[in-house]
Amino acid sequence: MTKRLAVLGSTGSIGRQALEVVRAFPERFRLVGLAAGKNIDLLAKQISEFQPKFVHHQDRGAQAHLQGGEFELLSLEQIASHPEVDIAIIAIPGISGLSPTLAAVKAGKRIALANKEALVMAGEIITGEARSHGAQILPVDSEHSAIWQCLEGEMQPAARLILTSSGGPFLRYSPAQLEKVTVEQALAHPTWQMGTKVTIDSATLMNKGLEVIEAHWLFDMPFENITVVIHPQSIVHSMVEFIDGAVKAQLSYPDMRLPIQYALSYPKRLANPQLPRLDWSHINQLTFEQPDLNTFPCLNLAIEAGKKGGTYPAVACGADEVTVELFLSRRIRFTDIAHFVEQTLGQHQAIANPALEEIVAAVAWARESVLQLAGGGNQR
Amino acid sequence: MTKRLAVLGSTGSIGRQALEVVRAFPERFRLVGLAAGKNIDLLAKQISEFQPKFVHHQDRGAQAHLQGGEFELLSLEQIASHPEVDIAIIAIPGISGLSPTLAAVKAGKRIALANKEALVMAGEIITGEARSHGAQILPVDSEHSAIWQCLEGEMQPAARLILTSSGGPFLRYSPAQLEKVTVEQALAHPTWQMGTKVTIDSATLMNKGLEVIEAHWLFDMPFENITVVIHPQSIVHSMVEFIDGAVKAQLSYPDMRLPIQYALSYPKRLANPQLPRLDWSHINQLTFEQPDLNTFPCLNLAIEAGKKGGTYPAVACGADEVTVELFLSRRIRFTDIAHFVEQTLGQHQAIANPALEEIVAAVAWARESVLQLAGGGNQR
Repeated sequence: MTKRLAVLGSTGSIGRQALEVVRAFPERFRLVGLAAGKNIDLLAKQISEFQPKFVHHQDRGAQAHLQGGEFELLSLEQIASHPEVDIAIIAIPGISGLSPTLAAVKAGKRIALANKEALVMAGEIITGEARSHGAQILPVDSEHSAIWQCLEGEMQPAARLILTSSGGPFLRYSPAQLEKVTVEQALAHPTWQMGTKVTIDSATLMNKGLEVIEAHWLFDMPFENITVVIHPQSIVHSMVEFIDGAVKAQLSYPDMRLPIQYALSYPKRLANPQLPRLDWSHINQLTFEQPDLNTFPCLNLAIEAGKKGGTYPAVACGADEVTVELFLSRRIRFTDIAHFVEQTLGQHQAIANPALEEIVAAVAWARESVLQLAGGGNQR
Repeated sequence: MTKRLAVLGSTGSIGRQALEVVRAFPERFRLVGLAAGKNIDLLAKQISEFQPKFVHHQDRGAQAHLQGGEFELLSLEQIASHPEVDIAIIAIPGISGLSPTLAAVKAGKRIALANKEALVMAGEIITGEARSHGAQILPVDSEHSAIWQCLEGEMQPAARLILTSSGGPFLRYSPAQLEKVTVEQALAHPTWQMGTKVTIDSATLMNKGLEVIEAHWLFDMPFENITVVIHPQSIVHSMVEFIDGAVKAQLSYPDMRLPIQYALSYPKRLANPQLPRLDWSHINQLTFEQPDLNTFPCLNLAIEAGKKGGTYPAVACGADEVTVELFLSRRIRFTDIAHFVEQTLGQHQAIANPALEEIVAAVAWARESVLQLAGGGNQR
C-alpha cells in the first residue's frame, strides 16, 4: 500500500519538510516526482537520495544538466497529473502554483495543497473541476488542516470557522512603528519557519486574508461565517463551531510536518516520534485578541476582494506578490504593500465569473499596475 | 423519528437541564419516564407537564399520592430497561446510579450517563455487559463528552486523554487555608452550577479523580495515558492527543445542556438557540496549570484506587460519599474528606475482579469505616 508522491516545490520550506515526512516512512511513501524552481544544487541532492522517475526544474538550461539517477524531464503539469502519481503535493508558493494545481485537479488526483493562491485566484474553477473529476483537495496549511481535522466524523456542515493568526512579528505595532520596519524584521516570524513570500504575507496579515478566501472555497463556507482571531502562541491552529454551539479546536506546537503528514496519511494518522507532543506542564496560557484592522489593512483588503469575487482575488494576489518582491528588494516600505494593493484593487475593472485566461490576465494587470505605482514615486 | 426518553434523577441539576433540552425539541424527544429521589413537588409538576408513562419516586409512601396524569409506578431499574424507552438518561448522583445503569446496560439500551460512580465502582462489569448486550454508553459529563466528540471520525484510538479541571473554588489555596473553608464556600463553584455532591467533589478534586477512572473505562485508556490539567476558565472541556501528536479540544461556555443534548441527538447535532456561542472578542486567555497534588490529595487517591482496581474504586466512592455527607452536615472539616478517604482505602482488604455483590459490600464497608473514624474523634 505504498503511496506514490510527487513534491512540486521540493526545495522550498514545505517541500523540504514533506521530504522529511517521506524519509520517516519509507515503506509507506515512495517519491516518484520532484520539481523545484530555484535551488538546483539541493534538487540534485534530492534526486540522488530519492531516485525519482520524474523531475522538473524551472530553468530549462540547468535542468538539462541534472544528474544523479534515471529520470524523465517533465513539466510541472505533467508531473502533477501523471498516472503514476497517487498524491501531488503542491508546495510551489504564489501564483505559479495555479497551473499545476489545475492539472492535478483535472487528472482527478488526490492533492495535498500547500499553495493558497491557486484557490484564492481560481477557487470556483478549481473546486468545480475537482467535483467533475473526483479530485480530492487536502489542505496542508496548518489552519485549514486544523479545520479539516475538526470536521472529520461530523455529519453536518460547520456553523462557523475560526481561523487563528499569530499576528506576525509586528503584533501590537502602531501604524507609525510599522512604517519603519525592515526586511530583516519582517522575515523574523515569531512562531513559524516559512518561505519568504508567506513570511512577509504573515507580517502584513495578507496571508490570513488569503486563508479566509481559501477556507471559503475548501469548506464551502460563507465569508460572514469565517472569523479571524489573533492567537500569538500559534498552538491552536484553527477552530470550528457547530450548530449546537460546540467548538472543536486542533492544537500542536507549530510544525508544518504535522499537517503535511496528515494530508499524506489521511484518513489514518501515523505515529512519528519526530513530531513534538504538547507539554501541558509548560503551556501556561493561550491568548486571543482581535486583529487590528486599521494597522493591518491587508487582512480586510483580501477578505473584501474574496467577497466581491470575480477577478478581484486574483488582483489581490498579483498585487500582493509584486509588492512583496519590491519590499524584499528594498524598493518600497513595508506599509506600501497595503497601499499599493489597495490602490490596485481600487483601480481594477473586475470581470465576474472569469475564465482562467481572464484570471491570468488580471494577475498580469495587477503586477503591472503596482510596478507603475511604485515606479511613479508614489511611496509617500 | 421521535426518541422516547426516560430521565432518572429528573429533579436534580442534570435532570432539570435534560428536561430543558426535551422542551426545546418537542418533535424529536418524547419523555416517557421520570424518576426522582427527593423533590416530590417538582416531580409532580414534571408529571403534569410531560405526561410520562412511567414514574418512580424513592419514597414509596409519597409516590402513591402522585397525581397529574396516567402513569405506571415502576422501579428505577424497570424504567431504565423498559422496552418503550429508547434512551435512558441516568442523572442520579452517587452510588445509587449503579443499579439502574446496570439494568439499562443489560437491556441493551442507549444510555446517556451522567452518573460517574457506576463506571468507577463497576467499570469492568458495566463495560462487559454493554459489549454483551449491545448497549451504548454515551457520556454526559462535559469532560467525557468533549473527549467523545474529539474522537468522532478518528480511525485509530487516542494516544492520550487530557482532562481539564476548573480547580474548584479553592484553587491555589494552601493546606492551612483549606482547613478553614466552610460548607458555603465549598458549594460556591466558580464556573459550574451542579448538584451538591459533585460540587463538593469538585472542590476536593475527588471529582476529577473519579472522572479519570470513568475515562479509563469509557475510552479503554490506560491510566498512564490520562493527564489532568487545571484550566480555571472551564472553556476547554477536555482534549485528545493522537498518535501523530495532533491534539483536538472541545470548547464551549460551561453549560451542561450542550453535552446532554449531544448525547440525545448523537450522531447529529441540533441547532438550539438557547445554547450560548463562544464570543472570541471577549475570550482573552485560556490558562493551564498543574494540579496541586499535595493540597488536593483526593485526586491521586482516586486515581491510585483506579489503578489498583478490584474493590478499591468502590471503597473510594463509598468513603467519599459519606465524608461529603458528613462535611455537608458540618460534622467534619473539608480537609477531613481526604484524610478519611485515605485512611479507609489504607485499611481496605481488596478483592480482585469483584462480583457486583462484593462491590456493594465494599461500599457498605467503606461507609461504615468512615463513620467509625469520624465518630472516634479522629478529626485532628
